[in-house]
Amino acid sequence: MAPKKVLAPDTINGNIKKMVYAVRGELYIRASELQKQGKKIIFTNVGNPHALGQKPLTFSRQVIALCQAPFLMDDPNADIFFPADAIARAKQYLSYTSGGLGAYSDSRGLPGIRKDVADFLMRRDGYPSDPELIFLTDGASKGVAQLLNLLIRDEKDGVLCPIPQYPLYSATIQLVGGTLVPYYLSEEAGWGLDVQDLKRQVVEARMKGITVRGLVFINPGNPTGQCLSEANLRELIQFCHEEHIVMLADEVYQLNIYQDERPFVSAKKVMMDMGPPYSREVELVSFHTVSKGFWGECGQRGAYLELTNIHPKTVDELYKVASIALSPNVPGQIFVGLMVNPPKPGEISYPRYSEESKAILESLRRRARIMTDGFNSCRNITCNFTEGAMYSFPKIKLPQAAIAAAKQTGKAPDVFYCLKLLEATGISTVPGSGFGQKEGTFHLRTTILPSEDQMPEVMRLFKNFNDNFMSQYEGPSGALSKL
Amino acid sequence: MAPKKVLAPDTINGNIKKMVYAVRGELYIRASELQKQGKKIIFTNVGNPHALGQKPLTFSRQVIALCQAPFLMDDPNADIFFPADAIARAKQYLSYTSGGLGAYSDSRGLPGIRKDVADFLMRRDGYPSDPELIFLTDGASKGVAQLLNLLIRDEKDGVLCPIPQYPLYSATIQLVGGTLVPYYLSEEAGWGLDVQDLKRQVVEARMKGITVRGLVFINPGNPTGQCLSEANLRELIQFCHEEHIVMLADEVYQLNIYQDERPFVSAKKVMMDMGPPYSREVELVSFHTVSKGFWGECGQRGAYLELTNIHPKTVDELYKVASIALSPNVPGQIFVGLMVNPPKPGEISYPRYSEESKAILESLRRRARIMTDGFNSCRNITCNFTEGAMYSFPKIKLPQAAIAAAKQTGKAPDVFYCLKLLEATGISTVPGSGFGQKEGTFHLRTTILPSEDQMPEVMRLFKNFNDNFMSQYEGPSGALSKL
Repeated sequence: MAPKKVLAPDTINGNIKKMVYAVRGELYIRASELQKQGKKIIFTNVGNPHALGQKPLTFSRQVIALCQAPFLMDDPNADIFFPADAIARAKQYLSYTSGGLGAYSDSRGLPGIRKDVADFLMRRDGYPSDPELIFLTDGASKGVAQLLNLLIRDEKDGVLCPIPQYPLYSATIQLVGGTLVPYYLSEEAGWGLDVQDLKRQVVEARMKGITVRGLVFINPGNPTGQCLSEANLRELIQFCHEEHIVMLADEVYQLNIYQDERPFVSAKKVMMDMGPPYSREVELVSFHTVSKGFWGECGQRGAYLELTNIHPKTVDELYKVASIALSPNVPGQIFVGLMVNPPKPGEISYPRYSEESKAILESLRRRARIMTDGFNSCRNITCNFTEGAMYSFPKIKLPQAAIAAAKQTGKAPDVFYCLKLLEATGISTVPGSGFGQKEGTFHLRTTILPSEDQMPEVMRLFKNFNDNFMSQYEGPSGALSKL
Repeated sequence: MAPKKVLAPDTINGNIKKMVYAVRGELYIRASELQKQGKKIIFTNVGNPHALGQKPLTFSRQVIALCQAPFLMDDPNADIFFPADAIARAKQYLSYTSGGLGAYSDSRGLPGIRKDVADFLMRRDGYPSDPELIFLTDGASKGVAQLLNLLIRDEKDGVLCPIPQYPLYSATIQLVGGTLVPYYLSEEAGWGLDVQDLKRQVVEARMKGITVRGLVFINPGNPTGQCLSEANLRELIQFCHEEHIVMLADEVYQLNIYQDERPFVSAKKVMMDMGPPYSREVELVSFHTVSKGFWGECGQRGAYLELTNIHPKTVDELYKVASIALSPNVPGQIFVGLMVNPPKPGEISYPRYSEESKAILESLRRRARIMTDGFNSCRNITCNFTEGAMYSFPKIKLPQAAIAAAKQTGKAPDVFYCLKLLEATGISTVPGSGFGQKEGTFHLRTTILPSEDQMPEVMRLFKNFNDNFMSQYEGPSGALSKL
């Protein structure tokens, strides 16, 4: 008999074993199997716009192609393919590097791009931003992981996370051995953030011996799609100041806004507007990325974080952590540069850039509406409007018979529902339990990313499945479950 | 007075605080400052070929440019810029993706590229390789970090690392809270690996209550530049089998070989050649990257790891860890594909590819020689020949007066020497203490990457500085220090 493995599943790092990451969990794995078997799968489990047909912005791809292959610019025919402003931009970015995209950059990213990010933040918020406090990262997930690793010392350190939450947070907190302290978003109040609940959770955590050191909030919300009001952000900042808590502002969906009542406002701007002591004392880390917005350049893994009111020596420690991986990928850094400094009115590429990005955002706005309306037309489903981000998070009132059937198969009821949906329609979603939900309620998360012409068919397939599912488990005119 | 920070330097994660990463440590930071002040710096602290003038391979950049900007291929003039095989290759890679380079891939990387890697490994080693056991990562550092995180449960888990070692290992083991168990390479035996010493270290570690679970070896060596013989690898594999230890094979320099006596041979091939029980039982993880070799595409962050004899459920756990960061950057994956499947004889781009890559490798071979000879011509310096990898690791016999002077400034003697070297010449190296060295010996690591025409001047500057330094601290004809 072969000896037992050193890396046997029961002898690996226990934090990894306990970790759960539903976005690429059971549903995703089953969907991938079905795809291999030839079934057409609509992957709405992850915000991956290009995988569902969204086209990249032409200007950005022209510039990155030139940065990767600078010899194209030396050719006298370069202007057949490339507008002059793309060539100028590529030259600018190459001048930021020492040796082009094949050379490691500084571990925090290219100084030139960090300066461009700081200028963008100054324009966006009206307050100065310091390039030395901006770190470029391989996707925002990487930055979040580094920050949580810095913040969490052991299982007695707690981080407040919204429920429902994007499971990057729960998984990473588990991975680095901390404790997630949940606070509940209010579905009835459009997934609003209730500071009273936050306070209760902190008191409760402290009674258990947990030191609450961080608070994650996601604005616009993932998976919940709400946009926080300025008033709500002010309360949050006051709360973190009073309670001595570092704020982690996941603002990766700041360009994805589908209503006009509550435009995006950054936590940094609100905090600066509030003045001292908040503007000088609240420790804030904000995240943004090229994976979302109308860029949707997920595969490039470009992102940044900005540090505000963080101790300078702690900034050095973060630099040290970043330096072990040598440097974030340089092409992704170029995309960050492009995102924070797109073509401007008057430039050659502006009309095309403007047209392409507007078309994407307007279509997303229409799709948010089609999807929410679609869900609300389904039996036993209610759904808040997707105000921002890329997701819809409908509540599904499951009949008791369905819950019992799920139990028989050993699955959580929402997992059972989502698996049935997948097998019947090819629509790959993520069960609400992967994000957290109030006990006894069931949800699923789907992106609003299927292409606009595909969307009516997706919603028809969904409704068909759902209404049949409900008929099967409570009869054609059965009473709703009590939830 | 402002309240104490939550993220104060003394209240962050203690493992991060304790971590040291010299490659981008004090010397690098000082060099960056001097550069800002306008001093010309020769960065030889990190193996970053393009930063020192190495040109990228044309074919790879043509292909990646087309993958980033597929619309270039639609143009009837595409063949002005791009050879037909680059276009074909770009189409092949795009067919591996679902939505181009802007879409997340599977968290292990694109299945098509993983298949290409497996085919390459089959050709290289003569043994089958399973794409499901190949993970693409954002640089090899990322894969190493994931593996160590999986392996290490607490400070009682030990990992054997060579001394001198590449500090990625010491830093990551510290970061995830394990214990580094050192084994010493023998400078006198050309930095060979002494299995007797390994055994002693394991016994000693066990006496301290450490469970030795992993062994890192770097072949060709970093910072030491040696190539391991097949016999040496066989001993190592037997040792790991006997002692029940997972092997981490850092083989990122497998293309960088500057002598003909010991061509690179992979740990996997040796293990498979040995047959059972080794071939079926020794748990092995091997790493390779596009950052090194003649590619030198560091900034692209492309790499892979291959798992051999790892428990299938543990493979799933690694998949879960990878999935939190969603996917490695996709352009970097394309570079991995190009590295494992470069143009072949008979293809349009082969002559150019062959010429470019040969020129780089042959020049590196000459530079290895120039550098080693240069060091050996310096007063109080001896240096083993750089058989492979990208580094030279000369031993510097420091005069007692220099050691005393270093002490007065509060610096380690080798740090003192390297700082003086930097200030005098602009040559930025890494002190041997950053890698570990036998007590009382002093070294520095420099890459062999300054361009060939720059190299004589770099060595002249170095010799000049060194010989003056020695004169200053031991007089023009002073006796050598006793070491």
